[in-house]
Amino acid sequence: MKSKEFYMKKAIRQAKKAGEKGEIPIGAVIVKDGEVLSYAFNQRNAKNLATAHAEILAIEKACKKLKDWRLDGAEMYVTLEPCPMCAGAIVNARIKKVYFGAYEKKSGAVFSNYRIPFTSGLNHFTDAEGGILESECSALLKDFFLEKRKV
Amino acid sequence: MKSKEFYMKKAIRQAKKAGEKGEIPIGAVIVKDGEVLSYAFNQRNAKNLATAHAEILAIEKACKKLKDWRLDGAEMYVTLEPCPMCAGAIVNARIKKVYFGAYEKKSGAVFSNYRIPFTSGLNHFTDAEGGILESECSALLKDFFLEKRKV
Repeated sequence: MKSKEFYMKKAIRQAKKAGEKGEIPIGAVIVKDGEVLSYAFNQRNAKNLATAHAEILAIEKACKKLKDWRLDGAEMYVTLEPCPMCAGAIVNARIKKVYFGAYEKKSGAVFSNYRIPFTSGLNHFTDAEGGILESECSALLKDFFLEKRKV
Repeated sequence: MKSKEFYMKKAIRQAKKAGEKGEIPIGAVIVKDGEVLSYAFNQRNAKNLATAHAEILAIEKACKKLKDWRLDGAEMYVTLEPCPMCAGAIVNARIKKVYFGAYEKKSGAVFSNYRIPFTSGLNHFTDAEGGILESECSALLKDFFLEKRKV
């Protein structure tokens, strides 16, 4: 069995792809039984879609692959603590566990501002763990916004 | 200017379309400057997508129409109080106000379980009002689940 860091590195590679395209660098990977079901990165600007966060795109790809809206037993690795929309989608998709890198203190909806995986009132609970390769994940974001300010 | 009930009736018509197809009957409409930008109904089963709630589909259609992830000034009418995913998406899309019909006491994320439009920690606040044609909207859902139990 591969480590959490192994899969988080794949999510980081996705985040870098977003950054190279001028999008906020956030990446996600969904894994089931050790197999990667889907990869995605934030494409809000490229797709002109408010919903095109890495997590939503990864969930949609995985659902299409399994031809099922239920991703029972699947785990998500994402570089930043999910926002309310994405945390809600993770529960709706019945994901078993979400691992994230950097904490989002203001709007993070897993541990920081809300605890949606545990308290949504929906008929599913998702387990969660933060801080996987945290410094690498948060450096990605800090560097991106530093560069932006220079322009 | 049309009334709130005028637009909620359009959302109800969408919800009925979902019910006819065996989907939980929830419908949504997005309006800007009195013009309907998008109509959608729940298609979670038909599309096999955890994210295919009426609100998400309506937001995506409206973003595609305006070629912008920001739906500034737009209002959403939806027959049921949005779940965390959809309430988060409404804020992410910068929708000005969401009107809903029936309250979802357990998992509603606008007033009932969370108050995401007002407390998300994101850089936008969405105004909200519940109970528009409430009895008609909740009867739709009750009748649907009664029928389901008979089968």
